Amino acid sequence: MNEIPYKIYLEENEMPTQWYNVRGDMKKKPAPILNPETLQPITLEELSPIFCEELAKQELDDTTTYFEIPEEIRNFYKMYRPSPLVRAYCLEKKLGTPAHIYYKFEGNNTSGSHKLNSAIAQAYYAKKQGLKGVTTETGAGQWGTALSMACSYFDLDCQVYMVKVSYEQKPFRREVMRTYGATVTPSPSMNTEIGKKINAEFPGTTGSLGCAISEAVEAATTQEGYRYVLGSVLSQVLLHQSVIGLETKAALDKYGIKADMIIGCAGGGSNLGGLISPFAGQMLRGEADYEIIAVEPASCPSLTRGKYAYDFCDTGKVCPLAKMYTLGSGFIPSANHAGGLRYHGMSSVISELYDQGLISARSVEQTKVFEAAEIFARVEGILPAPESSHAIRVAIDEALKCKETGEEKNIVFGLTGTGYFDMVAYEKFNNGEMSDYIPTDEELKKSLDTLPKVD
Amino acid sequence: MNEIPYKIYLEENEMPTQWYNVRGDMKKKPAPILNPETLQPITLEELSPIFCEELAKQELDDTTTYFEIPEEIRNFYKMYRPSPLVRAYCLEKKLGTPAHIYYKFEGNNTSGSHKLNSAIAQAYYAKKQGLKGVTTETGAGQWGTALSMACSYFDLDCQVYMVKVSYEQKPFRREVMRTYGATVTPSPSMNTEIGKKINAEFPGTTGSLGCAISEAVEAATTQEGYRYVLGSVLSQVLLHQSVIGLETKAALDKYGIKADMIIGCAGGGSNLGGLISPFAGQMLRGEADYEIIAVEPASCPSLTRGKYAYDFCDTGKVCPLAKMYTLGSGFIPSANHAGGLRYHGMSSVISELYDQGLISARSVEQTKVFEAAEIFARVEGILPAPESSHAIRVAIDEALKCKETGEEKNIVFGLTGTGYFDMVAYEKFNNGEMSDYIPTDEELKKSLDTLPKVD
Repeated sequence: MNEIPYKIYLEENEMPTQWYNVRGDMKKKPAPILNPETLQPITLEELSPIFCEELAKQELDDTTTYFEIPEEIRNFYKMYRPSPLVRAYCLEKKLGTPAHIYYKFEGNNTSGSHKLNSAIAQAYYAKKQGLKGVTTETGAGQWGTALSMACSYFDLDCQVYMVKVSYEQKPFRREVMRTYGATVTPSPSMNTEIGKKINAEFPGTTGSLGCAISEAVEAATTQEGYRYVLGSVLSQVLLHQSVIGLETKAALDKYGIKADMIIGCAGGGSNLGGLISPFAGQMLRGEADYEIIAVEPASCPSLTRGKYAYDFCDTGKVCPLAKMYTLGSGFIPSANHAGGLRYHGMSSVISELYDQGLISARSVEQTKVFEAAEIFARVEGILPAPESSHAIRVAIDEALKCKETGEEKNIVFGLTGTGYFDMVAYEKFNNGEMSDYIPTDEELKKSLDTLPKVD
Repeated sequence: MNEIPYKIYLEENEMPTQWYNVRGDMKKKPAPILNPETLQPITLEELSPIFCEELAKQELDDTTTYFEIPEEIRNFYKMYRPSPLVRAYCLEKKLGTPAHIYYKFEGNNTSGSHKLNSAIAQAYYAKKQGLKGVTTETGAGQWGTALSMACSYFDLDCQVYMVKVSYEQKPFRREVMRTYGATVTPSPSMNTEIGKKINAEFPGTTGSLGCAISEAVEAATTQEGYRYVLGSVLSQVLLHQSVIGLETKAALDKYGIKADMIIGCAGGGSNLGGLISPFAGQMLRGEADYEIIAVEPASCPSLTRGKYAYDFCDTGKVCPLAKMYTLGSGFIPSANHAGGLRYHGMSSVISELYDQGLISARSVEQTKVFEAAEIFARVEGILPAPESSHAIRVAIDEALKCKETGEEKNIVFGLTGTGYFDMVAYEKFNNGEMSDYIPTDEELKKSLDTLPKVD
């Protein structure tokens, strides 16, 4: 066996040529998504006016295990993939742990995160369908950035509805998107009926993700040749993101490393689902066993404190309903929350795997998350996104447990992106001004009371 | 011959183990640096109170051709090196050029630029000498970021004097440095005698690089166990940066590619000097021939319009004098200049190679630079630093010439870093509010009149 290098790079010819759909290997499938009007499983015909046709097909297909990655997408992937699987030698030394820590780094592209893996796929299918463009929403801006980049590559129009407060507070994210040629509109805007309505009802509102989704969907369905695209939660997104896990597994296999523990941060579930899917597939097929840990913010604890039920994916209630671990579509994390992963629900695939006991979950407080981020940055030379730092926190905690027990566990975690655009949060932490907030049971009960009655 | 992949990665065991000192192969050496008080070649004893001893030795050594890279530095390099040499397939396609374009990408580390290659070396030698810490100045913040990261790795105190206007306008850069544990002081400050003096003379001044250098040097020489470090211009910095060129050459050789043209942006010369040194070495030894092009801003044209003469390296006139192409140490680029590379002079090594005709130089206007940056970003998926985009501009121009002539030239350029912290400039460009400024002959004459009388 070769000595394990700092960074394990696959060769281009070792890159995956197919995405893996973990639903194909699940005996008990995730519950189907429902038409918000009929509350019946949604059909391809009903989905197609909103989503690109190929993507709608992928969304509904829970039996096909592998999907070919089209050559155009594979060529784009080659610009920034394979991404490195890094052996965190310096972090291990700093912690004094016998554990071996590995992280799959997805921040090595301009969008700065793993979101690009799905953005390029969605843009490709939109182009292939002959569309003029796509619409989407963005909060912090990672998804909007990735999509802008993907659309510029395929010469597609890209219209991003950005939550107004982010639009104003994160002008740099906005400018990255504009540099890639996207139109960025602060939401709620006066471009859409729903935007006008919300502006009239709540003058001076700074917007919300739910509202931006509704505007983007309206913009897609009222313009000829446009569809709506989304960066997380959906099963199609997890499918595209499986490239992360497939590469991770190939890199580990190349060096004969057996992961004991796989850790990922979880907001809507796109990164976690992508990272773990081939490993979860082995577990589902009875071929191997892993400890898989989803890490979420204590301030937005959908897996650890939510309810497994059908819920709306957006506050505007225009998108299909999904069965998922949810805090209720009206849930909004405390204003002091700075660590991302703010979505009220969790991908239905992740939710079902969690419900089946294949995945465990932990919630962590944000000061602990930024503390871990700083430890990591100082020795590993990457300034991590706050989202990614949730996984770092638990990886460090587990490595410190190994220090006590002397176990040489192989700990693998997903480092989804960089924190270059999150320096306001880092500043708060550096100045000792960051605090934690955990929602009370009463608050959660209140938002869970808004769940729709289905069945 | 294998097909050339999108990204050529060397294996860790193919990484350079020695830095290359191009001065060793120069028959006519760069002129020696002078003691600012005596105007005589400065001695090791005179340099040692300011610089770490090993670094002072490297600075003065113009005969040794190769220096061992200490193992600790090689291990640190492995965290982010070898950096990829990327075949710009997508840019070639976009331009429709028969040329083959390659770029060496140095932005794949948190500091976001090549500066880290020398920062880690300088921090290492400071630590080895048993120092408590180092002081430096930073303008835009790339160097300060890299040094903060390097110091945190070796647990050294890092004191950064940041030009006040940048400190206030670039709070995110400041926070990255603080996250790495550095102390960042807006300059002019009240910490130093010179800072106090400048604040008294020019109340409300927003500072300058020259003033920040003077403060950093004073801070180094008045605190026990501190030395001053610098991120460009010096020959020691070019020595460390040779790792860029050595890797580039190894990657090209691995695939049997002969570069026709090597292009780099040039401010103080650290990136350009590092990139070209092994190629210039071949030329000096008569083994090969290349067209080497230094690209500088039209608003700060030291090579194309400056004078080859001894000048002060800093406006405070406390550092040694160097013979270099210079615009005069009092030269300050127009306030509308946003593209970096603002230094008034050019590394004495680059200056001498230019004077000997091994290097040619071009100046480009900033709107053309940002135009090239945008073209590049949209197809290659990396948002480039404005500095790096000077090289992109000329690479694109040359590739378009090949389109006319049908030549399949191999064009190699240095992509020194990412532009995540330069979105204010991109915003200006996106809004069509960016303009160009070329200094008049009279303006240049005025600043060149301040050159010291030496000889």
